[in-house]
Amino acid sequence: MQPDPSLARLGSHEGTTVTIRKLEHSDWPEVWKLIEPVFRAGETYAVSREITEAEARRMWVEAPTGTYLAQGENAVVLGTYFVKPNQAGGGAHVCNCGYIVSETARGKGVASLMCAHSQREATRLGFRAMQFNFVVSTNEGAIRLWQKLGFEIVGRLPGAFEHPHRGFVDACVMYKAL
Amino acid sequence: MQPDPSLARLGSHEGTTVTIRKLEHSDWPEVWKLIEPVFRAGETYAVSREITEAEARRMWVEAPTGTYLAQGENAVVLGTYFVKPNQAGGGAHVCNCGYIVSETARGKGVASLMCAHSQREATRLGFRAMQFNFVVSTNEGAIRLWQKLGFEIVGRLPGAFEHPHRGFVDACVMYKAL
Repeated sequence: MQPDPSLARLGSHEGTTVTIRKLEHSDWPEVWKLIEPVFRAGETYAVSREITEAEARRMWVEAPTGTYLAQGENAVVLGTYFVKPNQAGGGAHVCNCGYIVSETARGKGVASLMCAHSQREATRLGFRAMQFNFVVSTNEGAIRLWQKLGFEIVGRLPGAFEHPHRGFVDACVMYKAL
Repeated sequence: MQPDPSLARLGSHEGTTVTIRKLEHSDWPEVWKLIEPVFRAGETYAVSREITEAEARRMWVEAPTGTYLAQGENAVVLGTYFVKPNQAGGGAHVCNCGYIVSETARGKGVASLMCAHSQREATRLGFRAMQFNFVVSTNEGAIRLWQKLGFEIVGRLPGAFEHPHRGFVDACVMYKAL
């Protein structure tokens, strides 16, 4: 299949070329392998730690407007993200995204590349802003990164997340006009 | 059917007794009659103005943990609300509610009675806090009422709602620990 040139944007981290493209059906097993441990850990996503594969697939692939895959050399999977409307009706011009980087690829700029890509994709899809509803406050690296990429903390939900090791912690609402 | 005493709490406004009880299947046509015009107007809920009856029923009755009906004398329907977890996993101790008062019963304290009832119900169901994700800023009466009932504005989403007559307006995130 010819890659859609509008999707096959390239970034690079530490000399490795990263390709970001739309997910294909056959990619799911790799994506599930990547996201399952994050959901099972329960430290960063407000998702049941007992989520089934079918539920995760619905949430990550079927419900969103688009789901994407970041790959390094030899097509090794580095990360994945989705984009979808955050609300319906009068709120449908604001999108929501979720990003997960594979454990072995963390701290290498993959999240940053995916977020930049998602902002271009969101604009292309007609969204005017991007909102993260629930960034767990203990996920400090993520908050710093989103801030660096232009997102502002526009709300703070006191004790809204029960962290498996740290108890009730705040969650942040982050927002960026595109 | 005997009313569940834990649900059949009474309030009163202007001398009228208001009963709030769990929704029964046979109540749906009345509820739909009440909520449909609010969704079609598109001024207060981030719901598609073209929502179908089946989609509305899923959203208002099937997805939530509980849906309730407020009735006045002669069982006239005054309002309805739902309660559900706002997030899954580590966020499931915070609930979300939606309230709609019938056009003829507005400004008479029905929303206030329903909100007080919902807070008791939420506590009974084990929730520790209540969050409204998207209170449209032009819905000033609602914001004032929620503030009076102990909710705080913990976030403001700039231009996140496209109002059919007023264009892009802010939406507020409101929160109360129970």
